[in-house]
Amino acid sequence: MGRFTRKSKDEIGRAPDELFFRGDKKIKNVRLRVIDFDSDQFEEVSISKTKEAIKYKDKESVTWFNIDGLHNAEAMRNIALSFELDHLVLADVMDTHSRPKVHDYDNCVLVSIKMMQMNEETGLISVENLSIIIMKTVLISFQERDGDVFDPVRERIKNAKRRIRKSGVDYLMYALLDIVIDNYIYIISNLGEKIEAIEGKLLENPSKETLDQINLLKKELNFLRKNINPAQEMILALSKLDSEFINESSLVHFKELVGNINQAVESSDSYREILSDQLNIYHTTISSKLNDVMKFLTVFSVIFIPLTFIAGIYGTNFDVVPELKYKYSYFIMWGVMIVIAIGMLIYFKRKKWL
Amino acid sequence: MGRFTRKSKDEIGRAPDELFFRGDKKIKNVRLRVIDFDSDQFEEVSISKTKEAIKYKDKESVTWFNIDGLHNAEAMRNIALSFELDHLVLADVMDTHSRPKVHDYDNCVLVSIKMMQMNEETGLISVENLSIIIMKTVLISFQERDGDVFDPVRERIKNAKRRIRKSGVDYLMYALLDIVIDNYIYIISNLGEKIEAIEGKLLENPSKETLDQINLLKKELNFLRKNINPAQEMILALSKLDSEFINESSLVHFKELVGNINQAVESSDSYREILSDQLNIYHTTISSKLNDVMKFLTVFSVIFIPLTFIAGIYGTNFDVVPELKYKYSYFIMWGVMIVIAIGMLIYFKRKKWL
Amino acid sequence: MGRFTRKSKDEIGRAPDELFFRGDKKIKNVRLRVIDFDSDQFEEVSISKTKEAIKYKDKESVTWFNIDGLHNAEAMRNIALSFELDHLVLADVMDTHSRPKVHDYDNCVLVSIKMMQMNEETGLISVENLSIIIMKTVLISFQERDGDVFDPVRERIKNAKRRIRKSGVDYLMYALLDIVIDNYIYIISNLGEKIEAIEGKLLENPSKETLDQINLLKKELNFLRKNINPAQEMILALSKLDSEFINESSLVHFKELVGNINQAVESSDSYREILSDQLNIYHTTISSKLNDVMKFLTVFSVIFIPLTFIAGIYGTNFDVVPELKYKYSYFIMWGVMIVIAIGMLIYFKRKKWL
Amino acid sequence: MGRFTRKSKDEIGRAPDELFFRGDKKIKNVRLRVIDFDSDQFEEVSISKTKEAIKYKDKESVTWFNIDGLHNAEAMRNIALSFELDHLVLADVMDTHSRPKVHDYDNCVLVSIKMMQMNEETGLISVENLSIIIMKTVLISFQERDGDVFDPVRERIKNAKRRIRKSGVDYLMYALLDIVIDNYIYIISNLGEKIEAIEGKLLENPSKETLDQINLLKKELNFLRKNINPAQEMILALSKLDSEFINESSLVHFKELVGNINQAVESSDSYREILSDQLNIYHTTISSKLNDVMKFLTVFSVIFIPLTFIAGIYGTNFDVVPELKYKYSYFIMWGVMIVIAIGMLIYFKRKKWL
Amino acid sequence: MGRFTRKSKDEIGRAPDELFFRGDKKIKNVRLRVIDFDSDQFEEVSISKTKEAIKYKDKESVTWFNIDGLHNAEAMRNIALSFELDHLVLADVMDTHSRPKVHDYDNCVLVSIKMMQMNEETGLISVENLSIIIMKTVLISFQERDGDVFDPVRERIKNAKRRIRKSGVDYLMYALLDIVIDNYIYIISNLGEKIEAIEGKLLENPSKETLDQINLLKKELNFLRKNINPAQEMILALSKLDSEFINESSLVHFKELVGNINQAVESSDSYREILSDQLNIYHTTISSKLNDVMKFLTVFSVIFIPLTFIAGIYGTNFDVVPELKYKYSYFIMWGVMIVIAIGMLIYFKRKKWL
Repeated sequence: MGRFTRKSKDEIGRAPDELFFRGDKKIKNVRLRVIDFDSDQFEEVSISKTKEAIKYKDKESVTWFNIDGLHNAEAMRNIALSFELDHLVLADVMDTHSRPKVHDYDNCVLVSIKMMQMNEETGLISVENLSIIIMKTVLISFQERDGDVFDPVRERIKNAKRRIRKSGVDYLMYALLDIVIDNYIYIISNLGEKIEAIEGKLLENPSKETLDQINLLKKELNFLRKNINPAQEMILALSKLDSEFINESSLVHFKELVGNINQAVESSDSYREILSDQLNIYHTTISSKLNDVMKFLTVFSVIFIPLTFIAGIYGTNFDVVPELKYKYSYFIMWGVMIVIAIGMLIYFKRKKWL
Repeated sequence: MGRFTRKSKDEIGRAPDELFFRGDKKIKNVRLRVIDFDSDQFEEVSISKTKEAIKYKDKESVTWFNIDGLHNAEAMRNIALSFELDHLVLADVMDTHSRPKVHDYDNCVLVSIKMMQMNEETGLISVENLSIIIMKTVLISFQERDGDVFDPVRERIKNAKRRIRKSGVDYLMYALLDIVIDNYIYIISNLGEKIEAIEGKLLENPSKETLDQINLLKKELNFLRKNINPAQEMILALSKLDSEFINESSLVHFKELVGNINQAVESSDSYREILSDQLNIYHTTISSKLNDVMKFLTVFSVIFIPLTFIAGIYGTNFDVVPELKYKYSYFIMWGVMIVIAIGMLIYFKRKKWL
Repeated sequence: MGRFTRKSKDEIGRAPDELFFRGDKKIKNVRLRVIDFDSDQFEEVSISKTKEAIKYKDKESVTWFNIDGLHNAEAMRNIALSFELDHLVLADVMDTHSRPKVHDYDNCVLVSIKMMQMNEETGLISVENLSIIIMKTVLISFQERDGDVFDPVRERIKNAKRRIRKSGVDYLMYALLDIVIDNYIYIISNLGEKIEAIEGKLLENPSKETLDQINLLKKELNFLRKNINPAQEMILALSKLDSEFINESSLVHFKELVGNINQAVESSDSYREILSDQLNIYHTTISSKLNDVMKFLTVFSVIFIPLTFIAGIYGTNFDVVPELKYKYSYFIMWGVMIVIAIGMLIYFKRKKWL
Repeated sequence: MGRFTRKSKDEIGRAPDELFFRGDKKIKNVRLRVIDFDSDQFEEVSISKTKEAIKYKDKESVTWFNIDGLHNAEAMRNIALSFELDHLVLADVMDTHSRPKVHDYDNCVLVSIKMMQMNEETGLISVENLSIIIMKTVLISFQERDGDVFDPVRERIKNAKRRIRKSGVDYLMYALLDIVIDNYIYIISNLGEKIEAIEGKLLENPSKETLDQINLLKKELNFLRKNINPAQEMILALSKLDSEFINESSLVHFKELVGNINQAVESSDSYREILSDQLNIYHTTISSKLNDVMKFLTVFSVIFIPLTFIAGIYGTNFDVVPELKYKYSYFIMWGVMIVIAIGMLIYFKRKKWL
Repeated sequence: MGRFTRKSKDEIGRAPDELFFRGDKKIKNVRLRVIDFDSDQFEEVSISKTKEAIKYKDKESVTWFNIDGLHNAEAMRNIALSFELDHLVLADVMDTHSRPKVHDYDNCVLVSIKMMQMNEETGLISVENLSIIIMKTVLISFQERDGDVFDPVRERIKNAKRRIRKSGVDYLMYALLDIVIDNYIYIISNLGEKIEAIEGKLLENPSKETLDQINLLKKELNFLRKNINPAQEMILALSKLDSEFINESSLVHFKELVGNINQAVESSDSYREILSDQLNIYHTTISSKLNDVMKFLTVFSVIFIPLTFIAGIYGTNFDVVPELKYKYSYFIMWGVMIVIAIGMLIYFKRKKWL
């Protein structure tokens, strides 16, 4: 299946509110973690039944439900029931192939964005869809598998003195999105290091591996750009969203996000240009090396051509070839040949062909 | 006739309300299917005379007329009469070469879009114009031939519990357009698979067939882009349309369509870039292979050049060539030749020319 | 003079209301044709003196003045006088090199657009400036020469039942512009056919003629694009114009024009991309053919190089060359040579160099 | 110093109202010419002291001060004093390297634009900054040197019947800007002629000179575009300026300017594309010629290779070479050689390698 | 670490108000300089403790705090305390990798921009983040190291007569930004000089060094563009900012900045295009030189090929070769060879292959 777009026959024509999972099942069981906090208290539990979630729903404190695994339509139906969410909302969440987006529903705001991770060894970037629903005091985050990048946020929540403990769900959402985008920049900066490291090799001794590396980096950068460019649009829309669930005091943070995502997009654009330039430099260097070789070899051959011709002349079997009789002819021939060879060498040197 | 634009002399200067069919006749007889439903009842009939349609016109329930074949001006005139549609509207419907568009007429909304299908064998994409007219309780869809992609919608309508049974014509139109756009993404993802499958061949052993395939895919992608890019504009206009025939509650669905069509356009852009990169990689690989061959052959020739020259020297017929008399000369010559050849090989190896 | 922009020293610094003809005189005498009609009557006359036009000015019926030839400042002055038009307006009309534009003057609206025609034989596109002035009941069209593309409109006017007979000058203007734009699309579709016809030749047997044809088509397409791109802007401005001379009921038609001109622009963009791709394919095919030839020739030469060397060895005149004495040496040499040649052939085949 | 941007260390950090001349001093003495007119009278004088200008300041008639040379800060200070202009305004005028701009000051409007001239011999374009200040009844134009393109305007002013005599300073400013932009188009059309003249040479017999010419024209076009593109923005801003010094009746003229500058920009874009295409055609033609030569030479060499090999075979000195004894061998050898050569020629012809 | 984007794992997930320094520590100790002035007095002191700053806070006069070094979180906390600034603001200041931006906080406006410096020897551009906070009467500027470009402003402040002494903090901010942007233009003009200096070498005798220089300049220009393009957005936002800390009378200056930054961006775009063209010219020149060499060498070899063949013919040892017996054969052979060589030379000359 295509890495950039995937759609099977099966997915066509589904109703928009059908709880149908589009994507690859990446985890076996759905997992649910709850963090509940306000400025005074903090609680972290792992619950197994989605129905248990209901008791957090109407609490005044901020509650963050983190759900790993989206493939279970039954679990989703329970969540919809517990939080009085329209099936439309959860169908959106289950469509992991959709573009990053902000939807302002009647009783919640849905934000979805691509979470990216780079395999440090292969350099390949993997993508996972992250959906966040915020309501009055509840934030639900949906991930395709367990393991995420949100530990720094959890740490900050545990610390009673941090701003996050005194803020609402909107600030929590900001904190999560901030980490996602910081990860974009981290990956770009990672790619960037590799790209800039190529520079040195390029000018000295470019090999086929250098080229393969450039092409690989180009492909990964393309893949990354395909995922973060729509996020830019989404973050901008979010920063302008007029919703009851987002306090005006949080807007300054969302503006910060706009700045960060713009930086990510611009950096990826810069690196794309650099890769293009590197490809050009590679080709130039390679072809200039080849040209040098071919020029050298050609000049070398050309020098022998008249000499071989002269030897051929005196290899003829004519009855009368006066030079053949003369005692010193052979040595004169060598002399003439050496003069011709040196003359040509000087000529080629002067013309800068050697 | 051009595949991208077609206009014959004959089509120039027609009045905008003349019922003149522009396009290729793709079906012999016009066919009319009616599906009538509300939350309580469901009826599906095939009628042969367009005039019979009139009885559905003022029913409270939602009625979907599906008309296959547009070339019959007489039938069109009847439809115009039955539904009190201006000739302008139906002339628009019959112009199958026009751009995707939304027109907000006095008593109806006309939407037209390109429906695409990919021949699984040849990989060629075919296009058909789809026009949809919605009125208070009536949706009329016009296709150029029979056979379509709307069966999933018909299934959903048959199921009394589905949202579509409780919704109006606007939701029905959304459902149809959604399938059309899902098909775009399906085709793109199909092309995408083929494009990504080329990658492997490209680096190992690119052949002329690989190149032809890239060029073919490029042409199909261009064709696709030409048809879906204007649809993007149209869907955006539709999502902002302020019409009595579209309920505000449907706007969330039309926004979803905007997201989908954007995804389609962006994916096709990504694949276009990938194809460009593949072309470059192809050329680089091919030319680097050729260079290797030429370099090898040249080096090979160059090694023999001084050897042949030496043989030539001792093929001369001078009376006095001292070396010729010496007993071991022939063997010494062989020795010198071998030394020269090995010396050159080592030199070329060191210079990395071999 | 440049085909894309022309400006002589002489044209610089003229007052904006000076009746100065900028362009090439393409016709000897100015010709004036009048069509006057309403839903009840129709009259068509050719008048020689511009002053006679005055009697149509205040009639209730729609009057279309068609003026061929703009170079006569005297005639222009009479027209200005007859219709109480500012000299500014007519100076605009006489500047045939200006961009397509809409100007909303106090007592009239001026529209100017490029009319294009393709010479069916040479494939060259020629351009003529068309200016249309509309007032309450009068439309004046100015062309640079006689012979135009408006006959279908004249036919429709003659037919008393057609919508055009019941409509005003704005509808008449729409009908004229519609034909102009339809002609754009016709020319593009014509170019398009030629462009797509090249495809076949490209892959089989591209010749220098194919290349020249591509370059010619590219130039014509550029020329066309240069003329229709500004028209897009103009038509859009026209569709948004708030003027007393344009009825709201005509806006739907002007919107149609926007769609058509957009289609023209997009098609020309598509064909431009196709031409670029074709150029690339041409170069790839040509260079791949050349490479095949050169590779074959080089391989051929390389096979003879060691053989000639061996012959050279036994052409030396050393007193002692043991092989020379042996009876079967000559035949063994042949054998060795054949083995070497076949060995090399096999090696090259395996390496896919042949 | 760079031709596209110039900035010396010295210019950094100056106060915005410091009367510091940035640019090259192009004229020795500052010169001041005054034209004063209304519909009834006309006066033209040359004054040497800027202080004398003051008497024209409060006249009802329109007064045009034309100042050549900006390097004299003292003179500038006098002008500022005479016309009660802020130093900011005149510092702007003296910064000849700034972008074209419109500034709406409290008691005046400042417009600056690049005036361009093409050296008819070298084809090089030179640029001069023109600043225009308009107040109630006074227009001051500042040029870097004497000699300008405004004579046609002066002529029009002398003629009492012309519109310019009855109009205000805004119309005068329009007339000056109109000439400047007409000159842009004139230069573009001039470059255009040269560009289109290259076309012929390109296909027949492209030489190194053709390439140099294309590169030169490209550089000049770039230079021109760099100067007129910002002017487009400025003219647009001017046409939308809401100032007391510009009558609404003049807006139609400023709109005309917008059309003209757009035409200039679009034409320069077209020519830029044409130059790119020409470069491509040049390279294609050159490389196809080279390929033909190399192919011919290679084929020529290849034909002799087997022949020389055969001669080599019979140059060997084996005791037993049966063919050598046969009487007609030599002639047979010639026959075989001719057959081989002709055979190869036919083969190469068939393969279209010759 | 990447030069274009840098992000370490460590930086991800920090709270937006955490005083965490992102960047390289470029200076050991934090330094604080205070300039306090109004139209009557002027004072300049260097203070070591940030707490001492507090006494300037509520003075009516304008106070400029210049802080070099941002890595000290403790010092930052003191500043936050002294000036009642939110931690958010100072955390922004300490993030030296962020994009140029304007933030309008409750009690201050924060502006950050990249300050650039060019190493005159290596031609490498270094970047430093400059943050400026303005409040009612206080401007605080933060730099990463000591040494800056603001001396001209300090000079202007010392001079009691200058406008800056009578203006507020907004004018002071303008003056600082103006210098930063002037430095951009200075660097661009510096690069520009180098770029234009390459032109000469390019056409005469392009060497590998020329290419390396072009690539280096391209990289620096890219780096520069990456830093100034976002500044353009920021300056535009600043010029439209509606803040209590910016007087309307200063807007004209900020508009001037917009003009300057636009000029910088456009110039860098122009030079980028020129560099691209130069790269093309370089490749063309190099490849045309190579082609000339190869053509010459090939022609040279080709001339000897038939001559060597002829010599080979008469080197054969056939018993009967009639020509061998004839007395003048050898001389005739020479004659024929010379005729052939000259004939080929003439042929190649005529064909323009030499």
